[in-house]
Amino acid sequence: MPNNSKFTSLEKWLLRKIQKSIGRAPIQLSLGDTDTGAPTGTPPVARVIIRDRWTLARLIVNPELAFGDAFSEGRIEVEGDLVALLENVSATTRGAKIGNWYSRLVGRLSGLLEFNSRRQARKNIHHHYDIRKDFYQLWLDPQLVYTCAYFPTPSATLEEAQFAKLDYVCRKLQLRPGENVIEAGCGWGALALHMAKHYGVKVRAFNISHDQILFARERAKTEGLSHQVEFIEEDYRNISGQCDAFASVGMLEHVGAGNYRGLGRIINNVLGPSGRGLLHFIGRNQPRPFNAWTKKRIFPGAYIPALREALRVFDPGDFSVVDVENLRLHYAKTLEHWLDRFDRSRARVTEMFDTRFVRAWRLYLAGSVAGFRAGRLQLFQVLFARPGWQKTPSTRAYLYAEADSVEQEKKWFHAMS
Amino acid sequence: MPNNSKFTSLEKWLLRKIQKSIGRAPIQLSLGDTDTGAPTGTPPVARVIIRDRWTLARLIVNPELAFGDAFSEGRIEVEGDLVALLENVSATTRGAKIGNWYSRLVGRLSGLLEFNSRRQARKNIHHHYDIRKDFYQLWLDPQLVYTCAYFPTPSATLEEAQFAKLDYVCRKLQLRPGENVIEAGCGWGALALHMAKHYGVKVRAFNISHDQILFARERAKTEGLSHQVEFIEEDYRNISGQCDAFASVGMLEHVGAGNYRGLGRIINNVLGPSGRGLLHFIGRNQPRPFNAWTKKRIFPGAYIPALREALRVFDPGDFSVVDVENLRLHYAKTLEHWLDRFDRSRARVTEMFDTRFVRAWRLYLAGSVAGFRAGRLQLFQVLFARPGWQKTPSTRAYLYAEADSVEQEKKWFHAMS
Repeated sequence: MPNNSKFTSLEKWLLRKIQKSIGRAPIQLSLGDTDTGAPTGTPPVARVIIRDRWTLARLIVNPELAFGDAFSEGRIEVEGDLVALLENVSATTRGAKIGNWYSRLVGRLSGLLEFNSRRQARKNIHHHYDIRKDFYQLWLDPQLVYTCAYFPTPSATLEEAQFAKLDYVCRKLQLRPGENVIEAGCGWGALALHMAKHYGVKVRAFNISHDQILFARERAKTEGLSHQVEFIEEDYRNISGQCDAFASVGMLEHVGAGNYRGLGRIINNVLGPSGRGLLHFIGRNQPRPFNAWTKKRIFPGAYIPALREALRVFDPGDFSVVDVENLRLHYAKTLEHWLDRFDRSRARVTEMFDTRFVRAWRLYLAGSVAGFRAGRLQLFQVLFARPGWQKTPSTRAYLYAEADSVEQEKKWFHAMS
Repeated sequence: MPNNSKFTSLEKWLLRKIQKSIGRAPIQLSLGDTDTGAPTGTPPVARVIIRDRWTLARLIVNPELAFGDAFSEGRIEVEGDLVALLENVSATTRGAKIGNWYSRLVGRLSGLLEFNSRRQARKNIHHHYDIRKDFYQLWLDPQLVYTCAYFPTPSATLEEAQFAKLDYVCRKLQLRPGENVIEAGCGWGALALHMAKHYGVKVRAFNISHDQILFARERAKTEGLSHQVEFIEEDYRNISGQCDAFASVGMLEHVGAGNYRGLGRIINNVLGPSGRGLLHFIGRNQPRPFNAWTKKRIFPGAYIPALREALRVFDPGDFSVVDVENLRLHYAKTLEHWLDRFDRSRARVTEMFDTRFVRAWRLYLAGSVAGFRAGRLQLFQVLFARPGWQKTPSTRAYLYAEADSVEQEKKWFHAMS
């Protein structure tokens, strides 16, 4: 470990530069044993120890990627609360460059450059979603819902909140028995199976993750729903047929902004004249390039759009936006649950993979909690419809009605027993 | 009146051309006594009688403007249901050119070209809103709310629905006693007064319609709210100061898409770090030029944006879209009430103005009912917030909760007694 006297004044200057770049966040930076000291008045929420010169230099050149890699490799240590650290950095740097046309342009271009060919998409999805299923089983709910949950009350468990989310999506779509649904990007199949089981619809669910499709088919068979739900291993670009409702939960992030209109043309082709659909995706307030480290190590090919960019999906057809809800605090809570379960399974994950993997995933989960808490990340549910969709309830009260809750509890009982 | 034999085959061809352009709408066109005949199978909802050659020619060159002007002047007569006629035309022509990049571009440009200088804006607003107040009193509710109402139940009266709308806006904004609100484009002041009276906030409300400001000030004085509500005759571009909540109901339509970022800069300047705001405006599914006749005769300088265009308001600051609700069917219902009341006051309006004015306004109101019913027009309420806004309820259930309805009924009683 280098000691204080060995550092050059250039290195100390670099350290102060980094401290400055994170603004007024109450964080203590150390280069080996050299503290920069946190801003006066606030006790620091965490201490970040940079172990060596090389890491320091990389932090200056490419801070996002360097921090993530160095943290994963143990060349950066964090003492204290990792989430609070990241949340503070998010909050203090969040406003930077907002409103600047140049940064909007750079953000937008970075989104448009994500073209994700069918082949590349398959590789990207394999990278993240085809990790051993028993890994995800350690920290997701038993249904393996790997998207934002919905907490009807703050004390709901993760299992309850994921069930509530699946049901909320169905109620927003006002599914009726016998209707046809197409789902694009179905994960391990929980939503498609929920729709079939509780709403009596037929679902064709698409996914390019081979392992997820196998798991979902198995579940459909076990639950006797194979005649109602078809799981298809296929790219969303190859979706055809007709449907009354279209759903996509947590796929848009992997589509790339350059393909939004293409996705819209698909929806326009399959959705009938009184159809409706729901897109559920992570968004942000302004177009920005995706975090360099997360993109390289966790989600290759991903892009998080501003709402305005995402609405480009509706350009190729006659769709009305009916309802947009921002559930970012629900995602922060969902991720807190995941992080907590992940931490409790740390020994097991280290056995499965290695320390580096564990550290990288902790950083990704903690960083996501921080991003949603600080308002740097958003979670949008966008309900859209053909102008011909004559939805019966004219207000949204039905989504929150007492009678509905009773109905939901009945389903609960059914599902949990 | 020309008879059948006098029409040339060119004219008959033109008539068939018009019939074709309105697609499969069950409408009978007559040139004098020459019927084109409606599409077989459907009984026509209305018969449109074109009185002379000159009108026919103008309909070919500039259909929107020609139809409106000729209808106002009695050179076109409509037998049957005017709203149904317009709704059918809207529905059958709605999808045309959707998804075409060229039409999107033309739409977007037409919006961006609405710059509305301060001087022009004053002229535009004077044209519509400074019409004698007793005219609006004939067919609006007693509070003179000239924007979309909110019908909590289908049987609510117009008065109830306008009260419910004002309250809904306040509850979405979660106003707390003592907070400061800025309202841009306050009409006759109903919302500002509602906020002050029922939520105990201080409001600074801006409007460039001289007559409306005078009326609103008078009402504030009569109701003893002058110390809480300040009505300011000033362009939104001159808004300054600081606020906890920003509201604008029915103004964006008059701003022009070229000024959305300018409006956003104003909001960014006045809204505090934990502030929130609501924009309520007429929108459409795709960028399109505003109806030529309505724009020329009824609302000069107006532009109806697609949601994606309107979100440009949020470019210049760090704002999160929290909630978007589409209330188009509520606006159809609101307009039905207005049209009904207008029709019952037709004799009085003819005395005040003339037949041409009455016919023009009937067309404008009926056309608006039709546009919202057919889904050609939308009504968006966009709730947005600074990332620092920690709204207490984490779901939207509070907007529809039983307890809240009781609270609202109490206010009702208070307001109506």
